[in-house]
Amino acid sequence: MVCEIICVGTELLLGSIVNTNAAFISERLSGMGVSLYKQTVVGDNAIRIKDALQAAFQSADLVVMSGGLGPTQDDITKEAACNFFEQEMILHEPSLERLKTYFNDRPISKFNLKQAMFPKEAIVIDNNNGTAPGAILQKDKKRIVLLPGPPNELHPMFEKVCKILSGYQRGIFLSKELKMFGIGESYMVEIIEDIIDSQTNPTIAPYAGDGEVKLRLTASADTEAEALSKILPVEQQIRERLGQYIYGTNDDTLESVVVDKLVKCSLTLSLAESCTGGLLASTIVDIPGASETFRGGLITYSNEEKINRLQIDEKLFEQYGAVSSQVAEAMASAVCTAIGTNVSLSTTGIAGPGGGTAEKPVGTVFIGLCYNGQTTWKQFFFKGNRKKIRTRTVKAALKMLLDRIDSDNNSD
Amino acid sequence: MVCEIICVGTELLLGSIVNTNAAFISERLSGMGVSLYKQTVVGDNAIRIKDALQAAFQSADLVVMSGGLGPTQDDITKEAACNFFEQEMILHEPSLERLKTYFNDRPISKFNLKQAMFPKEAIVIDNNNGTAPGAILQKDKKRIVLLPGPPNELHPMFEKVCKILSGYQRGIFLSKELKMFGIGESYMVEIIEDIIDSQTNPTIAPYAGDGEVKLRLTASADTEAEALSKILPVEQQIRERLGQYIYGTNDDTLESVVVDKLVKCSLTLSLAESCTGGLLASTIVDIPGASETFRGGLITYSNEEKINRLQIDEKLFEQYGAVSSQVAEAMASAVCTAIGTNVSLSTTGIAGPGGGTAEKPVGTVFIGLCYNGQTTWKQFFFKGNRKKIRTRTVKAALKMLLDRIDSDNNSD
Repeated sequence: MVCEIICVGTELLLGSIVNTNAAFISERLSGMGVSLYKQTVVGDNAIRIKDALQAAFQSADLVVMSGGLGPTQDDITKEAACNFFEQEMILHEPSLERLKTYFNDRPISKFNLKQAMFPKEAIVIDNNNGTAPGAILQKDKKRIVLLPGPPNELHPMFEKVCKILSGYQRGIFLSKELKMFGIGESYMVEIIEDIIDSQTNPTIAPYAGDGEVKLRLTASADTEAEALSKILPVEQQIRERLGQYIYGTNDDTLESVVVDKLVKCSLTLSLAESCTGGLLASTIVDIPGASETFRGGLITYSNEEKINRLQIDEKLFEQYGAVSSQVAEAMASAVCTAIGTNVSLSTTGIAGPGGGTAEKPVGTVFIGLCYNGQTTWKQFFFKGNRKKIRTRTVKAALKMLLDRIDSDNNSD
Repeated sequence: MVCEIICVGTELLLGSIVNTNAAFISERLSGMGVSLYKQTVVGDNAIRIKDALQAAFQSADLVVMSGGLGPTQDDITKEAACNFFEQEMILHEPSLERLKTYFNDRPISKFNLKQAMFPKEAIVIDNNNGTAPGAILQKDKKRIVLLPGPPNELHPMFEKVCKILSGYQRGIFLSKELKMFGIGESYMVEIIEDIIDSQTNPTIAPYAGDGEVKLRLTASADTEAEALSKILPVEQQIRERLGQYIYGTNDDTLESVVVDKLVKCSLTLSLAESCTGGLLASTIVDIPGASETFRGGLITYSNEEKINRLQIDEKLFEQYGAVSSQVAEAMASAVCTAIGTNVSLSTTGIAGPGGGTAEKPVGTVFIGLCYNGQTTWKQFFFKGNRKKIRTRTVKAALKMLLDRIDSDNNSD
């Protein structure tokens, strides 16, 4: 299958919202082995939508559209698509029933009623989070997928669409992602270049972003089990060389893996943050169930707070400065004791834009770790702006803790 | 001017990164009064880039392209654009000099050298954050703007481009944004519908996102002073009705305005966070210079931490629960005393997905504020997932503090 994506909406076109739908749809489809040629954004304009469809079907046999399925007169994507395929719309009774339930049997306006209209050939996709159902239209060997614009409605509906689309493909495509931190994309590719070059099934695609890298292994086969059996030995080969950087797979995040392992090992966590200023705690608390391991944190942003709250010896600041391995270790050790946990992390660094020196330039960060009474530290030099330096520090701290838990459990 | 945007890059096309550049460019251009017809994303493929340029120039006289200016063989956007305009590239000496400085006089590879090649008719745009200069190419009355893909390089370069482009426009367009929190988009529009309908210069466009709303006033005139004189009386009219929600203009954020006002009023800030778990502190620390007002914070995630760290009376928990106005007030008051600041904020709430009850459902949040010894609180019910509830709590807390500072200064 060759696919193009057309996102419809004046807010997208004028830049008032960022087009996350195109990325979401593209990533899912490319994972299924669908070829992607182009993404287009047009406004809610019948002529532009028609032009975009015409252009897309010159090379594609599948067009996925998002946006413009709402109840107002501006919303014309479905009408434009049906016009393009010369298909008439009739009332789709099951969708009307769902609308009635949605509106709790209050009267349904003619505007909402139009959302229940579809060509009789269409496959209608239910929407559990809004009033606009989606659809797959089909004519000859061409298909148009219609989805609403709000991501929380589109995401679950697109999963259903993918299941249907994979039925049109010969065989199935299965993807597995290996997620890594602590290695750059080009160095990662260098290490496994021979594996990448020698593999055609599964294919191996590297991705980078936000300081992390990942490899997506995509196998095609007749069954899921067969696809998995093609992926596993290649995954094994990759793990032998890159295992130390791989922290998880697929939907795992550094913070979800950390929280998961802390809970499994019955470890409790506290934090003492300076340069990250609460971002490390906030990242942990983002994970539902974090309260099973996370007790609390101290944001000791000023030196006085480090001294008063954590009882760190003032001499350390005079002798080594607040951004030093000595202060990082003292912070980690003190917060463990103060809050009474098995494990703690601390951060102290220069996030910029000011505060850098020749000896300790902007981006200098020390991370302290206290683990069952043993304290260690690591130094990093991160590049980028204030936000980037703080985000990298959080990820580095999580990875440092993860490695410690893993080595502890492997040595058992 | 009529503009189309073409973003080039396989990572965009396959969805491994979200296209924030298109939104950024679109928003800036539409603010300048440029008409936008289409955004396109294509891979690093000479034929597709040429097709996209051809299609774009059927209706546009300006095409802004991002991505594909890097040093590798994959990066072919500049070459494709020059081919399209049939312009030859020669070495651009000033860019070569900049590259030499960038590489600290280490030898420059032939790959990087190609980044200093441009048609002699081009206006070259310096890049202070990377090796790829941008350019404005021109042929007859058509223009192509070339910009690198990384947002931190593109943003400042595009500001320079906008200045040059505005010179090609008849008259100028000036925009001013009024930023609001605490009101929904549809209610805001309702309140000022008559003003919006009666205005053609400036135009008034509402935008919503991330729990905030904004109005963009765009005036066209011969000079900046004239445009401003058209905007000001309309802004005044709007402020009379919506003033209580407006926290700032243009690049202001809630956190930047809060930090700014705290510093100006010589107030010091501390935080006690439960449900936000460090997100409030982290949002404050994001602002460079936050250390001038922010001293530190306590993330008292568990009840034990609230009791031990903040010495909150255990009876409050038994009588009212951890998520209550009483605990919020006690947290705010205690952290002010503990850290020794004039001002503090506290948060306690149920961010979900678990933990909700009939009486206190998921989304119930109490925010405490201690301001020069006086303690107050507010209750909120936020909708959405864990992330959304925590983000809204942070914004609501910042707005609550802002209102307090303003009322304090107005009553002087």
